[in-house]
Amino acid sequence: MSAEATSPAKVGIIMGSQSDLRVMGDAAEILEEFAVPHELTIVSAHRTPQRLVEYAESAASRGIDVIIAGAGGAAHLPGMVASMTPLPVIGVPVKASISIDGWDSILSILQMPAGVPVATVAMDNARNAALLAVQILGCADSDLRDKMTAYKQALAAKVETMVERVDREGWRAVRSSL
Amino acid sequence: MSAEATSPAKVGIIMGSQSDLRVMGDAAEILEEFAVPHELTIVSAHRTPQRLVEYAESAASRGIDVIIAGAGGAAHLPGMVASMTPLPVIGVPVKASISIDGWDSILSILQMPAGVPVATVAMDNARNAALLAVQILGCADSDLRDKMTAYKQALAAKVETMVERVDREGWRAVRSSL
Amino acid sequence: MSAEATSPAKVGIIMGSQSDLRVMGDAAEILEEFAVPHELTIVSAHRTPQRLVEYAESAASRGIDVIIAGAGGAAHLPGMVASMTPLPVIGVPVKASISIDGWDSILSILQMPAGVPVATVAMDNARNAALLAVQILGCADSDLRDKMTAYKQALAAKVETMVERVDREGWRAVRSSL
Amino acid sequence: MSAEATSPAKVGIIMGSQSDLRVMGDAAEILEEFAVPHELTIVSAHRTPQRLVEYAESAASRGIDVIIAGAGGAAHLPGMVASMTPLPVIGVPVKASISIDGWDSILSILQMPAGVPVATVAMDNARNAALLAVQILGCADSDLRDKMTAYKQALAAKVETMVERVDREGWRAVRSSL
Amino acid sequence: MSAEATSPAKVGIIMGSQSDLRVMGDAAEILEEFAVPHELTIVSAHRTPQRLVEYAESAASRGIDVIIAGAGGAAHLPGMVASMTPLPVIGVPVKASISIDGWDSILSILQMPAGVPVATVAMDNARNAALLAVQILGCADSDLRDKMTAYKQALAAKVETMVERVDREGWRAVRSSL
Amino acid sequence: MSAEATSPAKVGIIMGSQSDLRVMGDAAEILEEFAVPHELTIVSAHRTPQRLVEYAESAASRGIDVIIAGAGGAAHLPGMVASMTPLPVIGVPVKASISIDGWDSILSILQMPAGVPVATVAMDNARNAALLAVQILGCADSDLRDKMTAYKQALAAKVETMVERVDREGWRAVRSSL
Amino acid sequence: MSAEATSPAKVGIIMGSQSDLRVMGDAAEILEEFAVPHELTIVSAHRTPQRLVEYAESAASRGIDVIIAGAGGAAHLPGMVASMTPLPVIGVPVKASISIDGWDSILSILQMPAGVPVATVAMDNARNAALLAVQILGCADSDLRDKMTAYKQALAAKVETMVERVDREGWRAVRSSL
Amino acid sequence: MSAEATSPAKVGIIMGSQSDLRVMGDAAEILEEFAVPHELTIVSAHRTPQRLVEYAESAASRGIDVIIAGAGGAAHLPGMVASMTPLPVIGVPVKASISIDGWDSILSILQMPAGVPVATVAMDNARNAALLAVQILGCADSDLRDKMTAYKQALAAKVETMVERVDREGWRAVRSSL
Repeated sequence: MSAEATSPAKVGIIMGSQSDLRVMGDAAEILEEFAVPHELTIVSAHRTPQRLVEYAESAASRGIDVIIAGAGGAAHLPGMVASMTPLPVIGVPVKASISIDGWDSILSILQMPAGVPVATVAMDNARNAALLAVQILGCADSDLRDKMTAYKQALAAKVETMVERVDREGWRAVRSSL
Repeated sequence: MSAEATSPAKVGIIMGSQSDLRVMGDAAEILEEFAVPHELTIVSAHRTPQRLVEYAESAASRGIDVIIAGAGGAAHLPGMVASMTPLPVIGVPVKASISIDGWDSILSILQMPAGVPVATVAMDNARNAALLAVQILGCADSDLRDKMTAYKQALAAKVETMVERVDREGWRAVRSSL
Repeated sequence: MSAEATSPAKVGIIMGSQSDLRVMGDAAEILEEFAVPHELTIVSAHRTPQRLVEYAESAASRGIDVIIAGAGGAAHLPGMVASMTPLPVIGVPVKASISIDGWDSILSILQMPAGVPVATVAMDNARNAALLAVQILGCADSDLRDKMTAYKQALAAKVETMVERVDREGWRAVRSSL
Repeated sequence: MSAEATSPAKVGIIMGSQSDLRVMGDAAEILEEFAVPHELTIVSAHRTPQRLVEYAESAASRGIDVIIAGAGGAAHLPGMVASMTPLPVIGVPVKASISIDGWDSILSILQMPAGVPVATVAMDNARNAALLAVQILGCADSDLRDKMTAYKQALAAKVETMVERVDREGWRAVRSSL
Repeated sequence: MSAEATSPAKVGIIMGSQSDLRVMGDAAEILEEFAVPHELTIVSAHRTPQRLVEYAESAASRGIDVIIAGAGGAAHLPGMVASMTPLPVIGVPVKASISIDGWDSILSILQMPAGVPVATVAMDNARNAALLAVQILGCADSDLRDKMTAYKQALAAKVETMVERVDREGWRAVRSSL
Repeated sequence: MSAEATSPAKVGIIMGSQSDLRVMGDAAEILEEFAVPHELTIVSAHRTPQRLVEYAESAASRGIDVIIAGAGGAAHLPGMVASMTPLPVIGVPVKASISIDGWDSILSILQMPAGVPVATVAMDNARNAALLAVQILGCADSDLRDKMTAYKQALAAKVETMVERVDREGWRAVRSSL
Repeated sequence: MSAEATSPAKVGIIMGSQSDLRVMGDAAEILEEFAVPHELTIVSAHRTPQRLVEYAESAASRGIDVIIAGAGGAAHLPGMVASMTPLPVIGVPVKASISIDGWDSILSILQMPAGVPVATVAMDNARNAALLAVQILGCADSDLRDKMTAYKQALAAKVETMVERVDREGWRAVRSSL
Repeated sequence: MSAEATSPAKVGIIMGSQSDLRVMGDAAEILEEFAVPHELTIVSAHRTPQRLVEYAESAASRGIDVIIAGAGGAAHLPGMVASMTPLPVIGVPVKASISIDGWDSILSILQMPAGVPVATVAMDNARNAALLAVQILGCADSDLRDKMTAYKQALAAKVETMVERVDREGWRAVRSSL
């Protein structure tokens, strides 16, 4: 349905509207960083329900292993996709302009009934959705798991660098530079 | 799909699970009271998505004029039906055991994006959903509108009766009898 | 009470204050787009209660079929109009400056007691209120129902166009253009 | 409209439904304790809007000085009465069975627009509504103000008695007797 | 403690901090408009507790009839004043920068225990607090009650003027001028 | 650390307290149903932090592929485990007696910072956590994916059976039997 | 003011009402367990404001080092005591029957303005308030700090015992015994 | 780990990220004002869990008496530190950009289970965290307690100065100068 990589996509990133790209682009960037083949497209649960059905029903047979779905307001996309695929679906609550402080998208995605889970991540946190996809793929790909371990070490190193900077320059200097 | 009346149904009542009958049965009772032909069945957005598509896409051609959909938790049924029919869809947020004080079902039903409205009524208030359906049908059926006017007069009369009882017996007696 | 169309109005749009025009104007625009005769005026439940009574009690006899009422804060306009008319009333919660994140207007409009429904739509979503009015009128007007079907197809087409643009230009380009 | 006292009523207690008597009866009891002439009746904003108008418009001329109005859910009674009378209106949010944890009644009563205040008290706290009415009448009635001062001293004395009991018997004994 | 009028003050306006003047100044303006003698000063419950005690205990004997108290965050000023005076106390929840969307000040002021009411008005609505004070004083001052009736008529007239403007110029023109 | 299966465990189920077994036992039951080797034990983030570190750091090398962690209140267990393992971690917010309507556990688990995702499922929904674990393992195990597809078909079949029962017996009979 | 120990009290436990003993008694039990001399009494901010002033102003000179204050609803006791003493004040939000899900007491206690902190603990968690008091006294009392270390080891040991029981008996047996 | 004072630090200020310096710097400024030796550094619970363990386990032996920990979102830092030290831990909920109106950080820090308290202060109120630390140290340092008493008198004096300014210049002038 779209092409973001030369190998067949393993992760499908979908979102309800192009305005969600502001948030959901981060997921693609992480997957690029981890060299995970992926695709990205727009599927609106409410405006293109047929497209939603086709996407969800075909994903597994097309080789997709994990679906990342982001939406705002009454966010039905992640849960409806989950209802039509055996794949794990990761939901990203987007705090859209139509949102009530984000509560609507969080609860619409999180509170799925028994039988149909959606792996929900923090509001607007598409980066974490992609990292979770990498962790999932890492269950069968030890290289990817090693990369994840390295990624976490890099996160720690970045904190250590900042610790040293605060020690060296003093917190006031660091605060001023924020 | 089910039969609750001899004439072709004009109102379709659907719900995500049989446990919602506790709340949604009230809608059928109101429609019986107003002699509006209707049908009632179970359609689960998350467990029977194909059935959802069939129901939503066929409703108008089967003669249904209004759909009443009730669901709890991440309640996607009303909004997804609304995405696939030109008919007005009334949503009933059900405070299911899986609900977070009902906020999840309210926000999942209410906060639909521009283009796909759901007419949301108060939590667990399937009776109001049915009255709203009667009002909608009343736009083209003056008998039904007259019945609605009479219904409202009966509501008022019931209050007046209670006013008189409080005047006659005193509020303490009425409170004791609650 | 006001005149927005040459034919007698079928939909009455009211709001508590002129500042609600920012939101409620969208409803009139949708009705124009669907060529539904309508009227628009200001009725304040709290500052002009007599006007509220007159409007609500006369609407049906003046030929109005559906009322759309928008208000913010302790939003009593939709529910009070609904208490005095057999017509369906659609409520638009407006996130006014006096609102607490919009929760006050949502709950004041949505949580009507049994017997007096208000068809509540998403916060600030007057466009959806008007589309719901069109769907309601479509129950007795097959042309209007066809237009609604076409409207939904246009929504889908717009998504498809964006899907193609993302495929063609890449998501980064589309994101940059937001 | 009802008679709870031989002298003309100075405080009018109204509520949306007889089920609110469970809470609102406390207001009448406090007014009896302070010997303030009062009346108590049922006025439903949504089921008897005409009665609401009559009550609100006639209250001042009938000698009423303060109105106490209790209601649950989308609680429009206090605010609508306030819109039609120059008298101070005290609102009691009732946590009815139809309520969402009481938030709906609190916000529907509290968040009135500029120009039309409602003096809101704590949820289900009709006793405080009546005490506030006594304080208001006390502005022109020094006997009543003195009684209020005595009432507060009695509240303090009751605490002191409990303090002594805890000192004498130990907190464990008092806790066991709760 | 301060002097805003030549006659002895009947209404005392207090607030926790000078930053509350942004909101609370509106109360003084309304009282000026109604020619009600009043005073305005700062009393911090948490930084000047002794001053709080003195203010609350002396208010009645100084001739004050109504106290208006505004505060933000954990807003203890209105309730603590109410605990030490037989006068009616009106509380204004202020959405200060330290507030969590205003919920903290609303709940801290509204949810007073039985025995010690605070008449709470809408968030940041000091104007309504002053109008409520006028209504309270109006119980013993028919001139003031007549002024309140006139004030309400002026509110209605302002709406009517806007209604006519919308009719005359069209809603689009009015919306553009917002 | 515990033994629930003869093969080496692939899924580790942990929870903050034995009282969470009420909810978390459901996860083990689903994994049994899918014949996924798993282990279940108690790890308290706050009372046994060393045990938390050991569990999280050793899980991957012990052959665990997915961790399911449930906790209530300020629920730090899922997020802290996630900080110390490259494995995907699924979090179950438990509505413990110490919870504020479950909001505390939901937000403590869901709102993880960028870099450290937790796959959050609905409140008290340990069953969905286990189904998500099966879906994750299914990425590298086509038998498991087929079982998941069959599981979903069984869910649908159960709904269809109930649909037929409602058609055959009528909704009143079904409601009575709830 | 009360006597719970032979040595002069170092911790003062106060609460707004005897009904708070249900929760606040736990604090006294912890202090007994740690052999910390303490006193317990009732001080109502709203019904006995003078007593509040006396208690707060005299506590430090009477040898009290830490004050634990519990209250429900609009909980002003902890903050007002904090305003009148240089001692650390620990606040316990009590979910009283008058509470709105406990949010009112939490926010009334937590959201103190800059300059006057209250050390707030979890809802109804008087046990933690007492443990915090022990930790505070432990800053100058190494025996007490050692006891706290031992207490934490005992907490861990209790978890370990339960871990072993689950391993030995199986989780189903433990769940059944809950 | 860092050095902000020549004497060994008695208070350790930590935070999850350098961006928290915006808020947490205020704590260091208050401690400087009170001449309390302290240190400030960054410890991320989720990115540097080992560092968290080292910091928490070594703090007491390094001479630290009180720990102040600030974090946003799913804020696990304060609670996890508290789980590994016998010292009192003060938690500052930071309203980070990733926060949902701050509710997530408040509840993640406040709602600790029995046995492991965190002394929570108001959102973003690092100043109060430091004042609480001073009060805690004041239990064993009468000079510090005297400074705290003086600090409170200075707060009161500042209010008095503003009271006089309002009296002298009038509230309008003061409001204009805000």
